Amino acid sequence: MLNYRKDLEKMPSYDGVEKDYRIKVNANESTLNLPPLVEERVINRLSYVAFNRYPNEEYYSLVEQIAKNFSVDKSQILIGGGSSEIIEKIFHAFGGGDKTIVYPQPSFSMYKIYAKAAEAQAAPFDLDEKFDLNVDEFIKKIREVNASLAVVCNPNNPTGNALTIAQVEKIAASIDCAFLLDEAYVEFYGRSAVNLVAKYPNLIVARTFSKAYGMAGARVGYMIAQAEVTKMISKTFMPYHMNTLSLAAADIIYQMRDEFIPRIQMIVAERQRMAGRLSSLDGVEVFPSNTNFILIRLARAAELNEHLESLGIGVRYFSPDAAGLKNCLRISIGTRLENDEVFSTIKNFLEGR
Amino acid sequence: MLNYRKDLEKMPSYDGVEKDYRIKVNANESTLNLPPLVEERVINRLSYVAFNRYPNEEYYSLVEQIAKNFSVDKSQILIGGGSSEIIEKIFHAFGGGDKTIVYPQPSFSMYKIYAKAAEAQAAPFDLDEKFDLNVDEFIKKIREVNASLAVVCNPNNPTGNALTIAQVEKIAASIDCAFLLDEAYVEFYGRSAVNLVAKYPNLIVARTFSKAYGMAGARVGYMIAQAEVTKMISKTFMPYHMNTLSLAAADIIYQMRDEFIPRIQMIVAERQRMAGRLSSLDGVEVFPSNTNFILIRLARAAELNEHLESLGIGVRYFSPDAAGLKNCLRISIGTRLENDEVFSTIKNFLEGR
Repeated sequence: MLNYRKDLEKMPSYDGVEKDYRIKVNANESTLNLPPLVEERVINRLSYVAFNRYPNEEYYSLVEQIAKNFSVDKSQILIGGGSSEIIEKIFHAFGGGDKTIVYPQPSFSMYKIYAKAAEAQAAPFDLDEKFDLNVDEFIKKIREVNASLAVVCNPNNPTGNALTIAQVEKIAASIDCAFLLDEAYVEFYGRSAVNLVAKYPNLIVARTFSKAYGMAGARVGYMIAQAEVTKMISKTFMPYHMNTLSLAAADIIYQMRDEFIPRIQMIVAERQRMAGRLSSLDGVEVFPSNTNFILIRLARAAELNEHLESLGIGVRYFSPDAAGLKNCLRISIGTRLENDEVFSTIKNFLEGR
Repeated sequence: MLNYRKDLEKMPSYDGVEKDYRIKVNANESTLNLPPLVEERVINRLSYVAFNRYPNEEYYSLVEQIAKNFSVDKSQILIGGGSSEIIEKIFHAFGGGDKTIVYPQPSFSMYKIYAKAAEAQAAPFDLDEKFDLNVDEFIKKIREVNASLAVVCNPNNPTGNALTIAQVEKIAASIDCAFLLDEAYVEFYGRSAVNLVAKYPNLIVARTFSKAYGMAGARVGYMIAQAEVTKMISKTFMPYHMNTLSLAAADIIYQMRDEFIPRIQMIVAERQRMAGRLSSLDGVEVFPSNTNFILIRLARAAELNEHLESLGIGVRYFSPDAAGLKNCLRISIGTRLENDEVFSTIKNFLEGR
C-alpha cells in the first residue's frame, strides 16, 4: 500500500455509467436541450474557439457579463466547474482539521462529502418534520459549534421549500462565520439574495448554469461575494481549471438568457399542475416546491421506484438511511407529456392497475 | 476576517488576462489550431451534445479508447481537466501535513504550488549545471526524506532534456513510494514509460491533450496506473469534474490522433533547425530539447525578453529567483515563419541592429 493522504481511503469513489432512462427525471436537469436558436449560436461560437490555446479572455468575458447583470464589481465574481466546484472549493477554503461546517439536513447530499474532502467536521442541522428550517435554532447551532462556514441551499434540494429573503438576511446578520447560500434552483423561485452581498461581508452566493439554463453537461457555475472573500477563495482554484469550450458556450447562453424565461415559466406551471395531481392520490404526501422538482412521500416508495425503473422512468429514490427522507421520491419536472406519463404510471401503480 | 483554512492566505491567486501576442511562443501550446478535418468533426460532434444532461457515457467512451490503445484495463485510466488537474489530485492524494513530495528543479513550476495546495512538504532536488538528473542521488534523496511521492517530468519542462526509459525504470524499481511520471511532452520525445505500469505498482503516468494534440483550451488529460492506485486517486475527484464538451472533443481527437503525426514531426524538425540556428549565435547557450520548446541562456535574457515583447513576441522569461534558470528564456516552437521571425529578432538584437 502506498503512503496515501490520511483518511483518503474512507472517501467514496464515483463511477459507473448511469442507466439510459426513457424518461429521465432523476437529476433535476433541464429536460430539454438548449433552445434551437441558442444552440445554433453556441455551436457557431465553438467553431471559432482556439482549441490550441490555454483559456484566457473567455473567463473574463463571462465574469464581465455576470458582474454587469448584478451591478457588482468584476472582482466579486469567480467562475467554477458547475456550482459543484464552487461549493467544493468554498468548503476547502473554510475547512481543515479544526473547522466545523453547518448545513441543514436533508439537503444537497454532496455537502457531507465536500466537508469530508475538506477535512472539516460536518455538523448537519435537522429540518423539522415539514422540512422547514428553524432559523433561530440554526443560528444558535452555528454559534454553538463555532462554525467556520454555514451553508443553506435555497430553495432546498431535495425538499423544494425555500427561506424568504428576510430569513436569509437574518442568518447572514446573526452569524460571524462565512455563509454560503447555494442558489442552484433560484430561477424557479424568483427571489435571489445576491443583493445582500453588498451589505454582508460573510455572504457568498453560488449560482449555476446547470439547472434553469440547461447546461449541466458544460459544468459552469459562479459565486458572488465581496472582493476580499473572492480573493481568498480564488486561492483554492488552480490555473486553467475552466475550459474554453464551456466558457464560450456559457458566454452565449448568458447573453441569450431571456430565451430561457418561457421554459422556466413552463416548468413552474408544470410543477404546479403535477403537485396538484399528485396531491389527489391517496397516501401520497406532496411537499411544496419552489424548484424544478417535487418531493413526495408514500409508504411504497421503494416499490414504486422499482416499478418506474422497470418502465424506463428514472426518478430519485433515497436510501432508507438518508436522514429524514424515508419513503421519499424526488421527481424532476419534465415536459408536459413526460409529466403526464410519470403521473399516470404512479396513479396506476397505486390503484393496483 | 473570516475563519479561513490554515495557510490559505499564503497561496497565490491566478488572475489577469494574458497579453495578446502576435507570435505566442511562451506557453508550449500548439501554435496551430486543430487540423481542419479534425476540427470539422469535433464541431459536428459538439452539435450532438446533450448540453442539458450531466456528463455520463462520454467519460467512459474516452477511457475505453485510451485503455484499448495502451492495452490496459479501463480501471487503470482516470481522466482529468488537463494533466494539471491530474497532477493536482495526485499531489493531494499523497499530501497532508506529514507527507513529503520530491521533484527535480528546475522543472514544471506548478509542482511547488501543487505541493503547497496539498499541504505537503515540497522537497526539490537540484538538477546539475547541465540540467541532468543524477538518478542515484535522486533515489537517495527520496529515501532519505521518506517521501510519499516522487515526481519527474519527462521530458522535462522547462529544460527540454529527458531521462531514458531505463533511468525511469531504475527510479520506479528503487523507491517504495508513489512515482508520478509527467509525460506532458512525450509525443515529441517518442519514448513513453506507460508499458512499465504493469510491472511497477508505484508508477503513475500522466498524459495530456494540451500539447501535441492542440487541445490546451479544452483541459483534458489522463493518468495510467495499476487499478488499486487509480481507485484511490479517483476518491480525490468530485462527481462531474469533467464536462461533456471537452470529453466529446477529446474523444474525436483521440480517434483521429494519426492526423497529428505530421505536425509533431514538423515541430521536431523545426526544433532541430531552431536549435542549430540559435547555437550559431555568440553568447547563446542552447540546451538540448526533446520537446516542443527550446531553453536558451544568455547574459542579456531580461533585456531580450523585453525587446521581443515590444515587438509582440511572447517567450517565457524566468524571474531571477527561479532556481537554476537565471538568464534563461524558453521558446516554444511555432510555425516555420514564426520561428524565422523569432530567430532573426534575437539575432538582430544580439548584433545590435
